[in-house]
Amino acid sequence: MTAEGERESSVRVRAFVPGPVTGFFSVHRHRDPEKAGSRGAGLSLTDGVTVALEPADSIEVVLDGDPVEMESVVRTLDSLGVEARATVKSSVPVSAGFGVSGGAALGAALVANRQFGLAHTETELVGVAHAAEVEAGTGLGDVVAQAHGGVPLRLDPGVPPAGRLDSIPVRPTRIEYVSFGGRSTGEIIGGTVDTLTAAGEHALGALRERPTLTRLLALSRTFAREADLLTATAETAIDAVDEAGGEAAMAMLGDTVVALGEGLSMAGYDPVVCEIDPAGARLV
Amino acid sequence: MTAEGERESSVRVRAFVPGPVTGFFSVHRHRDPEKAGSRGAGLSLTDGVTVALEPADSIEVVLDGDPVEMESVVRTLDSLGVEARATVKSSVPVSAGFGVSGGAALGAALVANRQFGLAHTETELVGVAHAAEVEAGTGLGDVVAQAHGGVPLRLDPGVPPAGRLDSIPVRPTRIEYVSFGGRSTGEIIGGTVDTLTAAGEHALGALRERPTLTRLLALSRTFAREADLLTATAETAIDAVDEAGGEAAMAMLGDTVVALGEGLSMAGYDPVVCEIDPAGARLV
Repeated sequence: MTAEGERESSVRVRAFVPGPVTGFFSVHRHRDPEKAGSRGAGLSLTDGVTVALEPADSIEVVLDGDPVEMESVVRTLDSLGVEARATVKSSVPVSAGFGVSGGAALGAALVANRQFGLAHTETELVGVAHAAEVEAGTGLGDVVAQAHGGVPLRLDPGVPPAGRLDSIPVRPTRIEYVSFGGRSTGEIIGGTVDTLTAAGEHALGALRERPTLTRLLALSRTFAREADLLTATAETAIDAVDEAGGEAAMAMLGDTVVALGEGLSMAGYDPVVCEIDPAGARLV
Repeated sequence: MTAEGERESSVRVRAFVPGPVTGFFSVHRHRDPEKAGSRGAGLSLTDGVTVALEPADSIEVVLDGDPVEMESVVRTLDSLGVEARATVKSSVPVSAGFGVSGGAALGAALVANRQFGLAHTETELVGVAHAAEVEAGTGLGDVVAQAHGGVPLRLDPGVPPAGRLDSIPVRPTRIEYVSFGGRSTGEIIGGTVDTLTAAGEHALGALRERPTLTRLLALSRTFAREADLLTATAETAIDAVDEAGGEAAMAMLGDTVVALGEGLSMAGYDPVVCEIDPAGARLV
């Protein structure tokens, strides 16, 4: 397979990884990082991150032009045995609940696989990026959701097949979002999560009884209140969308509100507009 | 949830289901149709079928303008408790290895779910369509592959999560195909399949050792010979693509040849051109 290996390693590729919006989740710790993670549900957006790699003497990450420490990417490339500079460009705000660290890790894994001729399967790459994200402490379920796209239901923590995944089939759907600022995922998921986890488990059970998109948003609103994660700015925006006849929820974990259709526009906000991404993380 | 149910059932939607090209497969019978099926690998194409439904007094199927008997669709809609006329339009040739019967069944399930407010998950709908296809005897693994898109590796027979699925991550890839005529899937998968299954199992094992797209094509060529399914016209085309420096294989089960990139054009054929579909079956 030498000819094939050479041909495959000579190409330069990029990956696109959708921004995952988590509506609700529960935390499940496990000593095996591929089995640790979260259960929950959310949306994958056509806004997200793109990742490119070029060979380098050490692993480096450049995010929107600036060198950054991004442990999820460093761990991913290290696991794959690749030394490269990762150039990450984000069309979503950083630390605002849009899974930039997980997306960068998964994108780096996909690009490394193709560009360096590693010949791993998708599930293997998702496993590497998920474990890197969990060990970095920056996320618990984003990578699995981002790989799938659409409206993922994460029925078990961790990576498939043990971490069972399902989804709500939806039409192409306009999504609007506004971000009021950042939050540290690590601080929240590293702390006491009993209340949050109970609320997340309840929401997932209720969604599975009748899995639809509008119900996902409604259960996400309840979760944000029960888990005591709802910010005042997000609450104001969600209430305004509700009064305008729309459906909105807070993106976990950011001070960010996401609405279906024209919900935020109708409520007088000036949102970013995108769609639900149907395909999940992919080479482009 | 009355308001939501009403809103969801009032819309008219269509589904697109990619045409799956199976490169190799093995047959696994089981009395539970959700566990019966095939293992194997192939491609999902941006050519395929679209499906729409309208309420009717009985279940009917219209394929490219003509009323047809299509048991996979009838069984799917019957399982879901929906009486409707399914209008199927195919951009791939029928009975040529492009999974029209499975695609129509899965498309009908996706549309019925949304248009009739059934609120099933993707996995549930794939299970219904797969079982219908298996019971109709028209296919064994198309539905699962079509739901996933991309380059699926079907590691176990049947529907996920028990029927484990993985995939080879690929860039957007031009695909060419020519179809020389039809074959009956039912006749082949209903007969003696020991040789075929041994060849398919061997190919899957070899692909998992190094899962790449070019290797998938090479192993598919070997499978077609070993399983004694290679037609003379397909062999001629595959050899011509090989001599032109391209990669081609036969689509199971049709007298059809599929090539990467410009393989068939380079060999002097006048192929249909499409791409690998990255997203899988979806509402549009």
